[in-house]
Amino acid sequence: MSGAAAARAGGIPKDLPDWTAGMGPGVTDEPYGAPSKFEAHVVRRNVEWLTASTESSVNFTPLQDLNGILTPNGLFFERHHSGRADVDPAQHRLVIHGMVERPVSLTMEDLYRLPPVDRIAFTECAANGGMEWRGAQLNGVQFVRGMLGCAQWTGVSVRTLLEHTGVRLGAKWVLAEGADNAALDRSIPLDKMLDDAVVAYAQNGERLRPGQGYPIRLVLPGYEGNMWVKWLRRLEVGDEPWYTRWETSKYTDLLPTGKAIRFSFVQEANSVITAPSPEKPLNGPGPYVIRGLAWSGNGRIARVDVSTDGGKNWVQAPLQEPVLPKALTRFYLPWRWDGGSALLQCRAIDETGYVQPTIEALRKVRGRNAIYHNNSIVTWLVNTTGEVENVQVA
Amino acid sequence: MSGAAAARAGGIPKDLPDWTAGMGPGVTDEPYGAPSKFEAHVVRRNVEWLTASTESSVNFTPLQDLNGILTPNGLFFERHHSGRADVDPAQHRLVIHGMVERPVSLTMEDLYRLPPVDRIAFTECAANGGMEWRGAQLNGVQFVRGMLGCAQWTGVSVRTLLEHTGVRLGAKWVLAEGADNAALDRSIPLDKMLDDAVVAYAQNGERLRPGQGYPIRLVLPGYEGNMWVKWLRRLEVGDEPWYTRWETSKYTDLLPTGKAIRFSFVQEANSVITAPSPEKPLNGPGPYVIRGLAWSGNGRIARVDVSTDGGKNWVQAPLQEPVLPKALTRFYLPWRWDGGSALLQCRAIDETGYVQPTIEALRKVRGRNAIYHNNSIVTWLVNTTGEVENVQVA
Repeated sequence: MSGAAAARAGGIPKDLPDWTAGMGPGVTDEPYGAPSKFEAHVVRRNVEWLTASTESSVNFTPLQDLNGILTPNGLFFERHHSGRADVDPAQHRLVIHGMVERPVSLTMEDLYRLPPVDRIAFTECAANGGMEWRGAQLNGVQFVRGMLGCAQWTGVSVRTLLEHTGVRLGAKWVLAEGADNAALDRSIPLDKMLDDAVVAYAQNGERLRPGQGYPIRLVLPGYEGNMWVKWLRRLEVGDEPWYTRWETSKYTDLLPTGKAIRFSFVQEANSVITAPSPEKPLNGPGPYVIRGLAWSGNGRIARVDVSTDGGKNWVQAPLQEPVLPKALTRFYLPWRWDGGSALLQCRAIDETGYVQPTIEALRKVRGRNAIYHNNSIVTWLVNTTGEVENVQVA
Repeated sequence: MSGAAAARAGGIPKDLPDWTAGMGPGVTDEPYGAPSKFEAHVVRRNVEWLTASTESSVNFTPLQDLNGILTPNGLFFERHHSGRADVDPAQHRLVIHGMVERPVSLTMEDLYRLPPVDRIAFTECAANGGMEWRGAQLNGVQFVRGMLGCAQWTGVSVRTLLEHTGVRLGAKWVLAEGADNAALDRSIPLDKMLDDAVVAYAQNGERLRPGQGYPIRLVLPGYEGNMWVKWLRRLEVGDEPWYTRWETSKYTDLLPTGKAIRFSFVQEANSVITAPSPEKPLNGPGPYVIRGLAWSGNGRIARVDVSTDGGKNWVQAPLQEPVLPKALTRFYLPWRWDGGSALLQCRAIDETGYVQPTIEALRKVRGRNAIYHNNSIVTWLVNTTGEVENVQVA
């Protein structure tokens, strides 16, 4: 007789677990739910030595424990420059001015009354992988690629907003500015704003979290995360960039020549194996699944290759649907581990034909000064013990 | 001089809000994040008179406050029959037995080692809208259609599992049983299980919440929610259904003749306007957006029509991408309210050509006994005050 049948017959076997032997809490105790206590290790983490303060700092998404293409809002990485602003939406305004015909100051209600759009897109800090670049071998996919998240964003397209204000002849750039203490501001090409930019008030169904810019942030599919201005309070239309500190002293790519690339907006094709990984070692030889993510700021992922021998041989990994432009794409590849050491790699190819480079190839072009836009192939060394290490191979 | 410019220059204007004048909390205080305090009203709610206990009861998704097609895990409706089980994944097993060649008892680690699939799908309680059916005019979209949610689910397809166990000649049904105190069990056609059923361990990126069946639940795209067995512990393969209490005394559709339809699995095409709605009244004449959701257990939504005059005239609402089979589909339709009374309706048409019926048409077929599978058109009466009421029109 099964446990359940015995229970129905009135005799509860002594070995029944608590959750079968008795009732659990009812439906009123969690108006807003929480993960299981057995998942308490799945959290955002920071790197203490990385920044001088926690207010101008970052916490990282635990990619090793995630599935599919969506990042839960509670686990979505945060990069702030003056801490997490807690904005009252009733007081908040979005001002649109500069080279427009009809400047406006919009309340949240004004925004809700405009036709919205939904858009699934990843956002990634320009510095994702930056610690690697300078040679720090942080042992964890959370730190190696965890300044990354993907969500369905809902809001009003910038095109709709600028149709309301009108734009003057000669306008070419838009400055976006945040309402937090840092007042981070970035110059964005008007063409991009009219293409697919969104002033978003929702993320993954619910309103933005404060750490993601509540009540509104800019969404710029494919562009580096700092340009997705949070707590957005101002859009100014102009005819040239503003050369703010965030696009001159920060977020530029310093070349070996001493010159720096400015306005390098797009996050190029990238990918990472989330398991096995330093946080997800192997438990003896046998069947496993190589789980990973790929993404490109230039469109759809066309193909992902996986190597278990450090890039000598590659096999194509099947991609999970949906494969959406400028969104995370998930791949799973069955793999039988024979117990020997292995060098796991993946590389993304996007619909433009761009192939994710090795770190060697990228360094030939960029040198070692730049810390942003490191989209080079990540290598995990699987030891014979099953432990996994972050290594760089020539 | 703008506030930000003044702040940079050292003089902070007195009217600057706190979040601009000073820094917010750093990145270490919320390892797992939470919504803004200004969104505290966005919660699951229950209906006190509906059930005799909170353990065998339901809480409802606040559809009126949601965007896009994904339901956040913290706001996903819960229907339990013996409370929310809190299962230890280390102790949990999935047993597959009956008419199989090789019965198995799988640990969670065994499941992780099998190739996974991702699938975006809605789940809906068979009783969604059931209170309406008996004439209760609950004033809120949360209660009228809130036993509904949509997520990206990740797990192992049942096909993969049954390929491992093998299935004996003549097998036609599979019993799925939960590990909670109710031990809810349902008979599911083998064909459905081999088509698109998934033993899921993740929802919207992270592991299932306890209220959704942690560590594993059955995902049956398009089928009624109670069959998506939570805390899944057992799959038994057989050659006929088991006629459990959950498919004989419960979850059947009682016809006027006294006969009952059993095994009515599919949630047919349905839709609802989430705003304006009783919870989202209008604030004076002017431009608004009619926001709504449509879904069908039979495939993709092909079209959504919207009426503002109780079904006399209809206009087609644009659908937001992605439009996925057996998933929620979002529509937004701009609407200018002239301040007069209006009767807002929407109706879904799916790719099979099925048109969501009026309640009158459905009652002609079903009578008034059945409380399940009420997918009839919902009507919101907009009063001249802007308040919105749930009404039924002939």
